[in-house]
Amino acid sequence: MVMGNRAPNKLEWRINVRNGTSEILQPKTGLVHRVWSWLKGLLGEFMLKIWNFLEKARNIAVAEPKKVIHCLKVGVTLTIVSLFYYMRPLYEGVGGNAMWAIMTVVVVFEYTVGATLYKCINRAIGTFLAGSLGVGVHWAASHSGDKLEPIILGISVFLLASAATFSRFIPSVKARFDYGVLIFILTFSLVSVSGYRVDKLIDVARQRLSTIAIGASLCVLMCMLFYPIWAGKELHNLIHRNLEKLADALDGCTAEYFTDSSAGDSWKKIGGYKCVLNSKAAEDSMAGFARWEPAHGRFNFRHPWKQYLKVGASLRSCAYCIETLDGCLNSEIKAPELLRRHLSDACITLSSSASFVLKELATTVKTMRKSSEIDFSIGEMQFAVLKLENAMKSLPNHLVATPSSTSDGDAKAEPIRKTTTPSSVMDILPLATLVSMLTETAARIKEIADEVNELAKLAAFKPPNTKKASQSQSSNQVDEPSNNEERTKGLG
Amino acid sequence: MVMGNRAPNKLEWRINVRNGTSEILQPKTGLVHRVWSWLKGLLGEFMLKIWNFLEKARNIAVAEPKKVIHCLKVGVTLTIVSLFYYMRPLYEGVGGNAMWAIMTVVVVFEYTVGATLYKCINRAIGTFLAGSLGVGVHWAASHSGDKLEPIILGISVFLLASAATFSRFIPSVKARFDYGVLIFILTFSLVSVSGYRVDKLIDVARQRLSTIAIGASLCVLMCMLFYPIWAGKELHNLIHRNLEKLADALDGCTAEYFTDSSAGDSWKKIGGYKCVLNSKAAEDSMAGFARWEPAHGRFNFRHPWKQYLKVGASLRSCAYCIETLDGCLNSEIKAPELLRRHLSDACITLSSSASFVLKELATTVKTMRKSSEIDFSIGEMQFAVLKLENAMKSLPNHLVATPSSTSDGDAKAEPIRKTTTPSSVMDILPLATLVSMLTETAARIKEIADEVNELAKLAAFKPPNTKKASQSQSSNQVDEPSNNEERTKGLG
Repeated sequence: MVMGNRAPNKLEWRINVRNGTSEILQPKTGLVHRVWSWLKGLLGEFMLKIWNFLEKARNIAVAEPKKVIHCLKVGVTLTIVSLFYYMRPLYEGVGGNAMWAIMTVVVVFEYTVGATLYKCINRAIGTFLAGSLGVGVHWAASHSGDKLEPIILGISVFLLASAATFSRFIPSVKARFDYGVLIFILTFSLVSVSGYRVDKLIDVARQRLSTIAIGASLCVLMCMLFYPIWAGKELHNLIHRNLEKLADALDGCTAEYFTDSSAGDSWKKIGGYKCVLNSKAAEDSMAGFARWEPAHGRFNFRHPWKQYLKVGASLRSCAYCIETLDGCLNSEIKAPELLRRHLSDACITLSSSASFVLKELATTVKTMRKSSEIDFSIGEMQFAVLKLENAMKSLPNHLVATPSSTSDGDAKAEPIRKTTTPSSVMDILPLATLVSMLTETAARIKEIADEVNELAKLAAFKPPNTKKASQSQSSNQVDEPSNNEERTKGLG
Repeated sequence: MVMGNRAPNKLEWRINVRNGTSEILQPKTGLVHRVWSWLKGLLGEFMLKIWNFLEKARNIAVAEPKKVIHCLKVGVTLTIVSLFYYMRPLYEGVGGNAMWAIMTVVVVFEYTVGATLYKCINRAIGTFLAGSLGVGVHWAASHSGDKLEPIILGISVFLLASAATFSRFIPSVKARFDYGVLIFILTFSLVSVSGYRVDKLIDVARQRLSTIAIGASLCVLMCMLFYPIWAGKELHNLIHRNLEKLADALDGCTAEYFTDSSAGDSWKKIGGYKCVLNSKAAEDSMAGFARWEPAHGRFNFRHPWKQYLKVGASLRSCAYCIETLDGCLNSEIKAPELLRRHLSDACITLSSSASFVLKELATTVKTMRKSSEIDFSIGEMQFAVLKLENAMKSLPNHLVATPSSTSDGDAKAEPIRKTTTPSSVMDILPLATLVSMLTETAARIKEIADEVNELAKLAAFKPPNTKKASQSQSSNQVDEPSNNEERTKGLG
């Protein structure tokens, strides 16, 4: 406890200590010390922030070394351009043309090849169109007298800038030519109001264009030759990683519900689907950039990037379902133990066959090779749906009036008696939900499979590896020979 | 039917006409005509494309006149800057300083005030930091001899460009200073490798900075004074519009299921929730820009924009649930008519009270005034959940063995008999799912309400309009006096 205590001629602060007496609190060395300790605290806090920041940066660098390589590439390109112009007589100070080369490199060099090409091509088209139009307007204005000149220039700048700015709101323009329109407005304004005569103007434009071309082509070369990062490949990887994440989440969800496994490791796997939910923006931008990329690796020039977006959309739709499923499983109302045990096998079979389909699709996309087993495993998934529905149908006969006091072993061994007093529907509500969510998830996985099939057709994926396929198919037939008839019904 | 027919010395095309004879098909005027008609087709196609494009643009302009106003503002600002520098002696050609003012306007003028301020402030900070650092490096290099100079310059450009590029990958930097870092790299490269002496360099920098300041301040003034579009307000509107969309979707879903209303108009309303699903990117960017905005309208300087993101996240979580609900309701398995009728009232009550809560929350956010009825209506929603659960619990006794051949009137009037043979659980599966989805949706709406409450607290929403509140509360009490006791239980 601290209290102010008035001494005869000055204010003292006293603190009560354990044994009943009190001690006077004194500043140790006065103002200097206080300022020093305050500064020290501030510095410590600052250092801690810097340290955390560096830690975060290090984590990013370790997780994705590609990003570090990209940064080094930017550094090297910029140094080359800077020093080249610094040492050549071409250079005429910061205001000169060298500036445009440096500016081009800084503005145009993007993380992926597609984005860099998009910016380069847009910059080229925008500059060229606006330059020609600007020279035209400039010529017309300069031939129409001193009074009309600023009016013509002003009106043309106003009209073109407004129209071009508006065009950036139109989705199709925004997706492909956003940057080009920006450069168009910039170049047109600069050229049309320039004080040069037309022949001088064309000379300036030629010099500047050549400088920009050098900067841009250096960027493109650096981007494509040294450790290129293709937007298309990133999109491709994103899609098959998302497929795997969904498979893990589905596995994890049901396993957690039925086996009561502790969280920890499994939670991490289940949580993976959350980043699928919000992947639309990333997919859209990557598909947009991938369009500008030349053929690379296993991707041709006209690779069906749009189909990846459709696969992505169906993935998200499935992720919504899994999110709801996850929510329902974590809700407070739990189904009675006996009911859970009754459906546990069928549910786990369905979820594992569904997640197997997802994994198979992930492999199909990853290896770009059609899977010979995919139809078979989809059939198996749909058969599991039927089996689960059958298990549900047989449920009323299994409902037991007494609370589940029997032990695990007994319940499985003993045939369960029919009763005339079925338990409340509320008891089976969570399980019913689980069943329909799983069924709905299976239906949506079927949609994903359709979209992936379409992708395989459009992108001409390689035919399946027949040797392995025939082996596994025959082994499957050995395992479950009796199910074939019922499965055929489920394929419909 | 068209067929090729070989005449003695040339190839003819004949076409069979109705009466059995055939006519010779002849090109009318040869090559010129064909080229002409091809060109006409091409032109027509081109005109159609242009027309569609203009149509699309017109639709955007009609739907959001704000965008047109923004474009006019950009046009006016650019014209002012261009003409000002065109007419003033300050101007020294395209390479001169005027260029920087025009460039600043083109690059910095964004749709919302927040985005414009973000770019201006980032540009200022980036330019200032890089400029000082550049001058320092330039000075150090120029004092270290002719041989060392390019090496020092090269290394410094390489290191800083790489480090700065890498920092753009760190989320916290990316969100706030992405543009500033870009400008930093640009300015540093330009300044450090410039051929000027240091005193000349400072002179150039001062001139250039003042030009940029003029351009930037003109942008900010134009942006803020004439019909300002605030990112914060846009975010605010987005959130309450999304709340309304969810309410409509919920209403539409259950109404469609239980009343078998035809699609058309109702579909439009239901589909509204789909844009809630993918609103994360838009919300994030708007919240990022809103941070830079000064106090405006009903929003203070430290308005809790981050809380809007939390509300948005809870909205999306609810939208996922509604998406699944929508999917389940549209699935092929339909519950038997009698069961549907049994639960119809309880479901419709729940969904309408839930959508009422959402509408109430939308009004709360929209008017920035706490709602006096919100606790009451949340209680009502939770009471409706209980009622629905009770309806489910009483279900087994209502299950009828014979198919529902009784007419609507009979089924309602007659007390339904108890039977000993309950129908299959599969029959109630769709309804059970509907019930748990509705329950889950209600739980998630409760979460939205919590987040909105937190927002109301943080943003100090006005206290509720007590007069209106007491009126409506008393009228509610008159309507349902008997429910109060049970409702209290539901509030827990």
